[in-house]
Formats: sequence, structure tokens, C-alpha cells
Amino acid sequence: MTQSSDIRVAVSTVILTLRRTDDGRARLALPLVLRTREPFAQQWALPGGWLTVAESPVDAAARTLAETTGLAPSYLEQLYAFGAVDRSPTRVVSIVYWALLRQDDVTAQIAAHQASGRAPENVRWFDVDQLPRLAFDHSEIVEYALWRLRNKVGYSRVAQGFLPEEFTLAELREAYESILGRTLDPANFRRQVEAAGNLLPTDRFRTGSHRPARLYRDNTDVELADRGPLGPEETSTR
Amino acid sequence: MTQSSDIRVAVSTVILTLRRTDDGRARLALPLVLRTREPFAQQWALPGGWLTVAESPVDAAARTLAETTGLAPSYLEQLYAFGAVDRSPTRVVSIVYWALLRQDDVTAQIAAHQASGRAPENVRWFDVDQLPRLAFDHSEIVEYALWRLRNKVGYSRVAQGFLPEEFTLAELREAYESILGRTLDPANFRRQVEAAGNLLPTDRFRTGSHRPARLYRDNTDVELADRGPLGPEETSTR
Repeated sequence: MTQSSDIRVAVSTVILTLRRTDDGRARLALPLVLRTREPFAQQWALPGGWLTVAESPVDAAARTLAETTGLAPSYLEQLYAFGAVDRSPTRVVSIVYWALLRQDDVTAQIAAHQASGRAPENVRWFDVDQLPRLAFDHSEIVEYALWRLRNKVGYSRVAQGFLPEEFTLAELREAYESILGRTLDPANFRRQVEAAGNLLPTDRFRTGSHRPARLYRDNTDVELADRGPLGPEETSTR
Repeated sequence: MTQSSDIRVAVSTVILTLRRTDDGRARLALPLVLRTREPFAQQWALPGGWLTVAESPVDAAARTLAETTGLAPSYLEQLYAFGAVDRSPTRVVSIVYWALLRQDDVTAQIAAHQASGRAPENVRWFDVDQLPRLAFDHSEIVEYALWRLRNKVGYSRVAQGFLPEEFTLAELREAYESILGRTLDPANFRRQVEAAGNLLPTDRFRTGSHRPARLYRDNTDVELADRGPLGPEETSTR
């Protein structure tokens, strides 16, 4: 029986943000890295690399994400371990992590990375509905990540992960609409959000071109449905 | 940098059932295997083994589960990939699967396994609230599986996985109570279940010592919240 040591372990990260495109609509986007080596040279792939003996999978994900994109999300959540026999020319099991980043955090982190002179030329952000065919099974991995994201908004507050600490109901609804890929009725959305009791109104308002809109924040007394007693390796030491 | 090939990949399975104990109450239980080799010789561990080059992780989980316990659940769902650096004397990443089995399926499968003459002597079923200290980080893995189970009953129909195709509301409530570890008000439970619309009443009744109770079945038009487009490796070919 072939030994397990012939199987290598890699990590990859699906890191999603909401970015406003020229038409003014917010769209889900993620960074991809252009591969320079075979297999799949000159094809786009998820940021990632090999797991090394001295680091936990989540630390490897954080390290390879920083090395390739300069991004450092506040947390990484394990998405899935992909291990199909034929997913790579050699036998590779990829432990995939995912994270949500606010667009302003993305901008700040990329700027800091560029200022450090280590800005990667082979990284590009793609709207999730305009992705090229990716290396390995990364297209399927992104599809699965998007399914999980759409699924989670139904029973968790994952959409808030794209928003600043205080946001308007319209901004929250726009995040839901971008994730679900359909428009939501503002009145029904407001009713459902208020019934869920996950938001606390503040006494502050967003002012601008429209009439002032009240700002809300997370009710942190309500636990996220999708967080739990993750193992020690799930706290990145980086 | 140490190569990833120094890291080995194992699979383990947390397979849960509801069994009625002498006091008449249903309790969550799972099978453990007594280790015969170091490390952790003579300690109880989750059923599992090494991933081999020719099989997907879910196939390896199904194979090692059948080899060690004789159990063959209708599906295995990936729980989590555990990869802490210090979880084993050597560097091992364990991809853990879980499944729910009906007690009568467990009984039938164990009987068939024993009839085949391959009945394992080193397998024992434990109530989850009476577990010994397990080998490796398997105690933490079971804790995580139970948290995920308790978490899932809130937004999915995972509790039905313990029940036959047709069941009474009392049997469903008992499953929820066993998972959540607390009693539920029968009237409130009935209201919530009927509001969710996940159950279809049949025209059949459970008769016995109590007054006849209507039998229900899953409304399969309602999709489980926790199933999705799993990768091809997630369909066991066994």
C-alpha cells in the first residue's frame, strides 16, 4: 500500500471583498495569483503554497497569503480540505481557508504592501462573476466558497464581515444583494433584520447625497451561528 | 524549508447515533477503537487510518471505518481538517469526517459484520457524556463535532438523520433534546416545527402504550441548509 508520505499538503485562501465597480454597484471580488511555474504555468490560481512541518495550516495560509498578496485578514476560517485523487498532476491535499475583508482594509493593506516595495506584480483582483478558468480545481473551490457564503447569510451575520463597524441598513442590504445575486425588498429586509435582533441602532447617521440614514452596529451579545470552539491551530499566531 | 512530504495525512470519522439507555432516555453515542500500537497504545481513538495515494479522503474514511467498525453510513460529511503541529508525535494532518446513523442501522450493520466473522473485538460504543480521555487530540475533535451538531440543529434538519423515515413529533423532539442536552417544551416545539414547514404529516399513526401519535416525514422539497455542491471526492465510490 502506497505510503501517505507520497501525498503533499498545500494551503490556499479564498479572500473575498465587496468592491464598487464603475456602474456604482457593489460586487464580490477576490485576488488571484498568476502562476509562474508548471503545472498550470501562466494560469490564475488562488493564493497559497505548501504547508511546512513547523507551522499549522492556518499559519501557512496566513503566511502564503501575505507573501503572495500582502493581505492580512483579522481571521481566517477553514473552508474545506480538497483531496480528489486527480485534482493535481501529483497527489496534493489542499486545506482551503477563506476570509472576508472590508474594501477599505483591502485598499490600506495593498497600499502598505506597495510602500514596502514588495508589491506583487502577478496578483490581480477579479469580480467573482468574471473569473477566468483557474488552475487545478480552484474554479470549483471558488464555486464552493461562494455557495457557502450564500448559504451562511441565511443563518449568520457573515454579510457584516464586508462592512465597517457602523453601517446603514441600505449598506447591509447591498451586501446581502451582492452575496445572493438578487435584489431584496427594502421594507421586508428592514423587518427581517429588526426581527432577528442582531443589530443595534446607534444615535449616529450617514449623511450625504441622500437623506440622513441611521447607522447600526452588530449586537455582539448575539453569537455568530458559524463560529465555534475551533482548535488551537485555528488561531493564527501571525 | 522542510518539505511538505514530511507531513502525513490521516482520516478519522466521528459517527454518532442515538441509543436508548437503561433509564429509557436516548443518548448520543459513538464508536471508539482501542489502539494496539504506539503512540497512545491501549487508549481509545476515533476510527480511522492513513490516506493512501490511490483514494480520496472520503473513500479512505469509508474504508477505514468499515475495516475498524464494520459500519457503512449512507454518507460521510467532512467535518474539519485538524493540523496542529503538536497534535501527534510525528506531523500528521487528519481530515475528519462525520456521519449520523439510526440506531437500527447500527444494530443491523454490526450484526452483519459479526456474521461475516470479522467482528472487531477492540471497538466499543460510548455515550458522548461518558467518554474516556482519547488518544491524540481526538477528545477535542469529538467536542468540536458535538458543537457542530448542536449548532446545526438550529438551522438544518440534521436531527432527522437519527430517525427512521417516519417519526412522531415526540421522537423528533427527543432527538433535539439529546443533541441540545436540555428538555424542550412540547407545545413550543410543535409550533416551531410546523412553522418551519420541513415536515409533512402522514396519515399513519404510531400506536403503543400511549395514545396514537401521528407520523411525519421530511419535506424533501425543502433543501437541507447544510448540504451543497460538494466536490467529486465527496461522493464515496464505495
